[in-house]
Amino acid sequence: MPQLRIALAQTNPAVGDLSANADRLVEWTHRAAERGAHLVLFTEMFLTGYPVEDLVLRTSFVDASVTALPATAGRLAAEGLGEIPVVVGYVDRSGAAPRAGQPKGAPLDAVALLHRGTVVTRSAKHHLPNYGVFDEYRYFVRGDRLPIVRLHGVDVAIAVCEDLWQDGGPVSAAGAAGAGLLVVPNASPYEREKDDVRLRLCVDRAREAGCALAYANQVGGQDELIFDGDSLVVDAAGNLVARARQFEEELLVADLELPAADPAAGPGSFPVDAGDGTTITVERLVLSAEPLPPYPPEPPVVAPRLADLEEVYSALVLGVRDYVAKNGFRSVVLGLSGGIDSALTATIAADAVGPDRVHVVLMPSRYSSEHSVSDALELVERQGLQARTVPIAGMVDAFEKEVELHGLAAENLQARVRGMLLMALSNEHGHLVLTTGNKSELATGYSTLYGDSAGGFAPIKDVLKTTVWELSRWRNSQAGRGGELLHPFLVPPIPENSIIKEPSAELRPGQRDTDSLPPYEVLDRLLSDYVERDMGNAELVAAGHDAELVARVIRLVDVAEYKRRQYPPGPKITPKNFGRDRRLPITNRWREAAGT
Amino acid sequence: MPQLRIALAQTNPAVGDLSANADRLVEWTHRAAERGAHLVLFTEMFLTGYPVEDLVLRTSFVDASVTALPATAGRLAAEGLGEIPVVVGYVDRSGAAPRAGQPKGAPLDAVALLHRGTVVTRSAKHHLPNYGVFDEYRYFVRGDRLPIVRLHGVDVAIAVCEDLWQDGGPVSAAGAAGAGLLVVPNASPYEREKDDVRLRLCVDRAREAGCALAYANQVGGQDELIFDGDSLVVDAAGNLVARARQFEEELLVADLELPAADPAAGPGSFPVDAGDGTTITVERLVLSAEPLPPYPPEPPVVAPRLADLEEVYSALVLGVRDYVAKNGFRSVVLGLSGGIDSALTATIAADAVGPDRVHVVLMPSRYSSEHSVSDALELVERQGLQARTVPIAGMVDAFEKEVELHGLAAENLQARVRGMLLMALSNEHGHLVLTTGNKSELATGYSTLYGDSAGGFAPIKDVLKTTVWELSRWRNSQAGRGGELLHPFLVPPIPENSIIKEPSAELRPGQRDTDSLPPYEVLDRLLSDYVERDMGNAELVAAGHDAELVARVIRLVDVAEYKRRQYPPGPKITPKNFGRDRRLPITNRWREAAGT
Repeated sequence: MPQLRIALAQTNPAVGDLSANADRLVEWTHRAAERGAHLVLFTEMFLTGYPVEDLVLRTSFVDASVTALPATAGRLAAEGLGEIPVVVGYVDRSGAAPRAGQPKGAPLDAVALLHRGTVVTRSAKHHLPNYGVFDEYRYFVRGDRLPIVRLHGVDVAIAVCEDLWQDGGPVSAAGAAGAGLLVVPNASPYEREKDDVRLRLCVDRAREAGCALAYANQVGGQDELIFDGDSLVVDAAGNLVARARQFEEELLVADLELPAADPAAGPGSFPVDAGDGTTITVERLVLSAEPLPPYPPEPPVVAPRLADLEEVYSALVLGVRDYVAKNGFRSVVLGLSGGIDSALTATIAADAVGPDRVHVVLMPSRYSSEHSVSDALELVERQGLQARTVPIAGMVDAFEKEVELHGLAAENLQARVRGMLLMALSNEHGHLVLTTGNKSELATGYSTLYGDSAGGFAPIKDVLKTTVWELSRWRNSQAGRGGELLHPFLVPPIPENSIIKEPSAELRPGQRDTDSLPPYEVLDRLLSDYVERDMGNAELVAAGHDAELVARVIRLVDVAEYKRRQYPPGPKITPKNFGRDRRLPITNRWREAAGT
Repeated sequence: MPQLRIALAQTNPAVGDLSANADRLVEWTHRAAERGAHLVLFTEMFLTGYPVEDLVLRTSFVDASVTALPATAGRLAAEGLGEIPVVVGYVDRSGAAPRAGQPKGAPLDAVALLHRGTVVTRSAKHHLPNYGVFDEYRYFVRGDRLPIVRLHGVDVAIAVCEDLWQDGGPVSAAGAAGAGLLVVPNASPYEREKDDVRLRLCVDRAREAGCALAYANQVGGQDELIFDGDSLVVDAAGNLVARARQFEEELLVADLELPAADPAAGPGSFPVDAGDGTTITVERLVLSAEPLPPYPPEPPVVAPRLADLEEVYSALVLGVRDYVAKNGFRSVVLGLSGGIDSALTATIAADAVGPDRVHVVLMPSRYSSEHSVSDALELVERQGLQARTVPIAGMVDAFEKEVELHGLAAENLQARVRGMLLMALSNEHGHLVLTTGNKSELATGYSTLYGDSAGGFAPIKDVLKTTVWELSRWRNSQAGRGGELLHPFLVPPIPENSIIKEPSAELRPGQRDTDSLPPYEVLDRLLSDYVERDMGNAELVAAGHDAELVARVIRLVDVAEYKRRQYPPGPKITPKNFGRDRRLPITNRWREAAGT
C-alpha cells in the first residue's frame, strides 16, 4: 500500500492577525518539511483565527483573507516549500447571488490546498453549527463541494470541523467516492471530558467513510473559548494511530499506509447525494498519481491523556495566559482575601503568567478575620507574588458619612470599595484585573455587581465551588512538578487553611456562606442540573433534588440573570455557562419554581 | 364581494408570563367582539411573549406553551367568545425526528387558529431570521405548511413575520392558492425609519400574492428591543386601508371587501413549490362557506405617522417604561451633572415613569463648574424631580490617601465614586440606576467602566451625541403637550443652558470633550458609517472622511470594545448597535486603521 507522512499543525493563531498567522504557517511548514512530511494540515480558519464573529460581516476583512491566501501560497514557494501541499482554513466569499436572510457578502468557512505557489482547490464547511457557543448561520453560507486530491497515489478528501459531527454531507460523500484519507481542519473548543467524545466521533466517522481520518485542532485561548488541541489520526478500521498533547502546541507527525487510488477514477467532478437533503459536488484532482518509493516509517506518537482535574486546570491556565497576552497586558492584579476562591485564582494566574507578574492586594475591613490576612500572606510567601495591603475602613467611613446604608447596601459598599481600588491600580499601573468569583456564587447572585465582579477576566467563572476545592487540592498535589502550564513551585502553593476553612464573605460579623446558601455539595449538584442541563422544576424534583430547595435556588438563579450579564468573560469548561451560550431575556416572568 | 371585519390586537405581552398573556388575549377578544369583529389577529408568539431566547430550549417551557393553547381556546368558548376565530402565535414543537444540529426539542415559532373551544389549525414560521438581533436558527426549526381557512366565504391564509420579508415560501404559496386575505402575526422590533420599509414591504407582498394583507405587530419594550406596533392593513392592489398608532396599544378594526373563495376549492391539502427550494403544504379548511349578509362598514382608521424625532423619543420612553415595569421596579435614580446627557435621560425617565418616581443626585466635585449645579437644579425645578446633593470630595480624598493616582486613573476614580453612590442608593431604596452615557461616548470609550456606566439600564445608549441635542430641542418644543408618552410639562423641561453649553466631563480643571474627541458633528457621521454600516478604512476614506481621523477613531472604537460589553442594556433605535447584534471577538488583532 502507498505510504504518506502527514503533519498536523496544532498551533495558536490570533483572531484578525492575518500576517502573524501567515508567518506562523510558513514557520510550521518549515518544521513539517524538516520532518519529511508529504502533507501539512493546519486548522479551521487558521489564516484569520477562529472565531471571527462579526468581523466577517466587514467586507474589508473578508477581502483581506481572500487576498492573504494566494499571497501565502506564493510565499511558501518562494521559501522553497512549494512542493509540500498545505491544507489551511481561511475565510472566502461565495460566488452565489445575494439572498435575503443570508449574511452580508455570503462568507464561507473555507479551506484550501496550496501547492507550488498556487491555490490548487478550495471548498467550505457544509454543516454550520448554530448552538451553544456557535452562531454560524449568522456568519456563513453553506459549502457544497468535496475536493479529493490524489497525492502520491492516495486520494485525500478535505472536510471541515462540524462536517464530522453531523450525519450526511462531506463525510458520506468521501466514503461514496472511495477516498483513502479524510483530512479535517478544526476549531473545536474544549469542554470538560469532550476529548472522549471526540475520539469516538473520529473512530465512527473513519469506519463510516471507510478511510483513515486526520483531525487537526486549534490550541489556545480566545476570549471565553479554550481550544484544547488533542489533534489525532485514526485508520480506516478506527484504530488510533497518533494523538497530540492537550493544551499545548505540537506538530503531530504520522506515517500512514493507505489504499492506492483507483487509477480509473480520473480528474473531474460529479454530484453525490449527501444524504442530508442536499447534493455535494465531488471534485477530483491529481497532484501526483504514483506512490512514493517505500521508506521506513517513524514510530507513532500517542500522547497520554490528562486526568479530568488536570485537564480542567490546564484549560484555566491557558485561558488566562492567552487572554492576558492577546489583550496586550503584561501583568495582573487581584484581591486576596485568604479564602479559597482568590487563592486558587492567584495560583492559576501565577501558573499562567509567572508569580512575578501577579500583583495581589489584601484589603481587610473591620469584619475581616485574623486568618484572612495570615492565610493570604502565607500564599504570597509560598508563591512569591507582588503584594500590598490597603485597609478599606477609611474609604467605607467616607461613604457612610454621606449616605446612610443598611444590610445588603452596606455589605455591597465594602465589596465595591475593593473593586474600585483594584480598578484604580489597574488604571495607574496597567495590570489586568482578575475577578475571583466562582460559578456557584455567580449563578445564585451571591456576589456584588461592580464589587467582587469588577475586572477584566474571571478565571473561575465556570468552576463550581466544589470543583474549586478539588482543583486546589489537585494543584497542591503537583508541588515540585513543572511544565508548560505549571510553575515549578517546590511547596504546595495554596495554604491548607484556605482549603479547609468554612467559606465566608466577611462582610458582616460572623457571616458564613451557609447563612444565605445551601451547602455547596447540595447546591452544585442542583446548579449543574438546572443551568447546564436546562432541567425544569418537575424534572429536578424527579431527579431527587429537594422540592423546596429547587424552588428557592431556581428563584435565586433566575433573579441573578441580570447581574451575570455584566460579569467579565472567563474561560469556559462546560457546555452551558452564562453569557452568550445561555441567553435568557432579562425581563421574563417564566419561573420554574412551583406555583409561581 | 363578501365582507369581513377584522381586528388586529396590537398589544404588549410579557415574555414568559403565559397566564397573564392568556388573560390579555381573552380581554382583547372581548373588545374585538364588542366591535363586531369576525376575526381577531394577535401577534407572533403572543402567548409566550417575544423574544424568548434560551427559555425555548427548556422542555418545561415549551410544554407550558403547548398546554396553554387549547386551554385558551376552551376559555374563550367558556366566556362566550367561541364563535369568533382567533389567530394567535405561540411556541409549539415539531413532530419531526430529532436531528444533530437542531435545537433541542425542535421548537416551532408557531401560530394557531382557535374557534369554538378548539384548536382548528396550526402552522409555523417558514423563514427564520438569523441576523441583527435575531438568532432563530438557534431556537427553531422551519415550518412548512400554509393553512387557508374559509371564513364567511373568504379564504384566509396565515403566515408569520419573517415569511413576509423573504422571497418564496408561504406568501408565494398563498398567491398560488388564490387566498383572499393573508393575515400575518409579527414581532418586528423598531428601527429608526423602519415604518416606511414595513409599509412598502406589505404593499409589495400584497400585490405579489394578489390578496389583502393584515399585519399585526407587537408593541412595547422587551429589554433592548422596542416593538413599535404600526399594525396595518393593505388591500390586494396595495392601497393602505388601516394603520394603528406607533408605540401605543390599539385594537385596529378594519372592514374589508374581499374576493369570494372558489367553491370548487374544497377542504384538503396539497403541496406547492415554495420558490425557495422547499415545498409548502397548503391546508384548506372550511369554517363557514357562506358570505355574511351585507352590513355598513366602519370608517377606516389610519393613524398619522410620527415625525422622525418624535418616533425616536417615543421609542426611548417606551423602552425605559417597560424595562422598569417588567423588572418590577417602581422608581429610578440617576446622577445629574448639569450636562445635556443626564438632562435628557432624566427627562425621558420623567416621561416614562412620572417625575415623582425619578430620583436625581447632584454629585459635585472640586472640578465641577458653578453652572453644573445651577443647571441641574433648574432642571429639577422645571420637572419636579426628587433631588439630593452629595459632594464627592471626602470620598475621593479617602481613596487618594491610600493609593497614589494620576491622570486617567484619578479621573476614573471620581466617576466611580459617583457610580458607587448611585448603586448604594439603589441597594438601599430599591431604585433602578439609569446610566446617562450616549452612543458617541460609548463607541469611543469616552466613559468609565463601573463609573458613569454603572447601572441597570442605559436609556440613550444607542443615541449619538448630535441626536441627543436634537431630541432635547424637540422635547422642549413639545412643552404644554401631554399624552401617553409625554408628561404634560407646562414649561420646556430642559434648561437651555444645558443644551447650548460646551460638553465637558469635568473630571479635571478646564476639561472639554474636544480635548479627547473630534467635534461631535464630524465624529457622529464617522461612527454611523463605521459602526452601523460596517464600512472599512478604505471605504470610509472614499466616503469623504478624513484619513487621519478615520485611523484614530477606528482605533478608539476597536479598543473600547471590551468596555462596551460590560455596559448595561438600553433601547435600540438603529440596526447596528453594540451588544448582541454586533459581536466582535474581544481579543482580535484586526485593525481597519491604515498600516496597522
